Amino acid sequence: MRITIIGSGNVATHFAAAFKNAGHRIVQVYSRHMQHAALLAYHVGAEAIDDLTLVSGETDLFVISIKDEAIGITAEKLAPFNKLIVHTSGATHMEAVQAFTPWAGVFYPLQTLSKTKEVDFRTVPLCIEGADEQITRQLIELAQTISNNVYRVNSAQRKVLHLAAVFACNFPNYLYGVARQLLAENQMDFELLRPLILETAQKVQEYLPGEVQTGPAVRNDHQTMATHLGMLDDKPALKVIYELLSQQIIKNDNDKATG
Amino acid sequence: MRITIIGSGNVATHFAAAFKNAGHRIVQVYSRHMQHAALLAYHVGAEAIDDLTLVSGETDLFVISIKDEAIGITAEKLAPFNKLIVHTSGATHMEAVQAFTPWAGVFYPLQTLSKTKEVDFRTVPLCIEGADEQITRQLIELAQTISNNVYRVNSAQRKVLHLAAVFACNFPNYLYGVARQLLAENQMDFELLRPLILETAQKVQEYLPGEVQTGPAVRNDHQTMATHLGMLDDKPALKVIYELLSQQIIKNDNDKATG
Repeated sequence: MRITIIGSGNVATHFAAAFKNAGHRIVQVYSRHMQHAALLAYHVGAEAIDDLTLVSGETDLFVISIKDEAIGITAEKLAPFNKLIVHTSGATHMEAVQAFTPWAGVFYPLQTLSKTKEVDFRTVPLCIEGADEQITRQLIELAQTISNNVYRVNSAQRKVLHLAAVFACNFPNYLYGVARQLLAENQMDFELLRPLILETAQKVQEYLPGEVQTGPAVRNDHQTMATHLGMLDDKPALKVIYELLSQQIIKNDNDKATG
Repeated sequence: MRITIIGSGNVATHFAAAFKNAGHRIVQVYSRHMQHAALLAYHVGAEAIDDLTLVSGETDLFVISIKDEAIGITAEKLAPFNKLIVHTSGATHMEAVQAFTPWAGVFYPLQTLSKTKEVDFRTVPLCIEGADEQITRQLIELAQTISNNVYRVNSAQRKVLHLAAVFACNFPNYLYGVARQLLAENQMDFELLRPLILETAQKVQEYLPGEVQTGPAVRNDHQTMATHLGMLDDKPALKVIYELLSQQIIKNDNDKATG
């Protein structure tokens, strides 16, 4: 397939590389900043452009990987080519594209992608939606050329997935940072905690989170929780977070026991 | 070394197996419940006992892996043998043992251990403390026979580690459960989120959490955060958690920018 990448950020970069590696041809890479466009274009053997009026119609698919609020106006500019247009946003309804063309879809990668960290794209769950059954099937087929985890997910479900990803990824990462800070203040290296963090994530690859919950809250160990809260006296925000999350763990466990 | 295991829970089970595999001899396994003692004792070729008066002095080390509040009275009963006694608790001061014997120490495994989930014990960080320099060295040497990650950690530091582990392991696992619940309510399988959870933990094996924070909060994407909060209207506790953690991520990022 001939594919045009609109954007040069984390998601655009990973998609461009994955499509290229799967044997597709990247026609053009667009970015508002020529040097960003040029860098990615160079890596995937495409033409770099920084002006949407230079977009070529000699393509089969436009992949829009830019800020959510710019998806609509970009789709509007690309619609006259009458080619498939997908966005890659978890938080944006398909309607943002479909308002301007019937050839609309979504290609949402449910993974945390950084330019500097390689990821095996075949393991990335791709959540696909198409404006009609034929488009959906075509997009799923394309998705399967780059990932082994392809799911059909509608806009309402994708919105929930995006929220769930904040709880499953962004918030845990913040909490890792809290733990690191506590160690640093007491002359200990973050290295000490890395195996624990990895094992916690590995456990839920096999089990459900509720089956492997550990710690003072699920044991109803009020003495330890009181000690921990005392240690957070000079960190009021962390103290509230500790209390709130512990209460929820205790509550969940009670619900399970009585439910 | 001849080792006696006091306890038959998760930590006792993993220690007994790790010591046995490293070529040490497990003399006895004690549990208040004979069938628990017998099961573990059978696996490691030891004698099972359910009465502390039956403990044999023909050993070199007592490993106490039981509830925190019972460590002291147990150490008191074992002290007359004049053998090394360690506990394995993150939340308990070495003093709980040292009050009764100068041959005191701590062997704290910084990992989430379940009986049913195998773990490569060589990767488990072992935090060692001894009542004096000679005991500390002896315990570190022993620890190195079962783990490649041996650290010298004093009681004050261990207390902080234990708190940090709640933030790095117990709370993230709870949040995985929240994400799972949100998916289940919308007919989606937890399978969709597993690669994201694993990659989030893998990223901080290489990077620091602050370097790889993603999501709406760190992007200052107030529109997405408002949408997410709206979706949590019928889950007040989760809404508060979302708000609080997002505020902290925004604040951290501002501190970094201005600091």
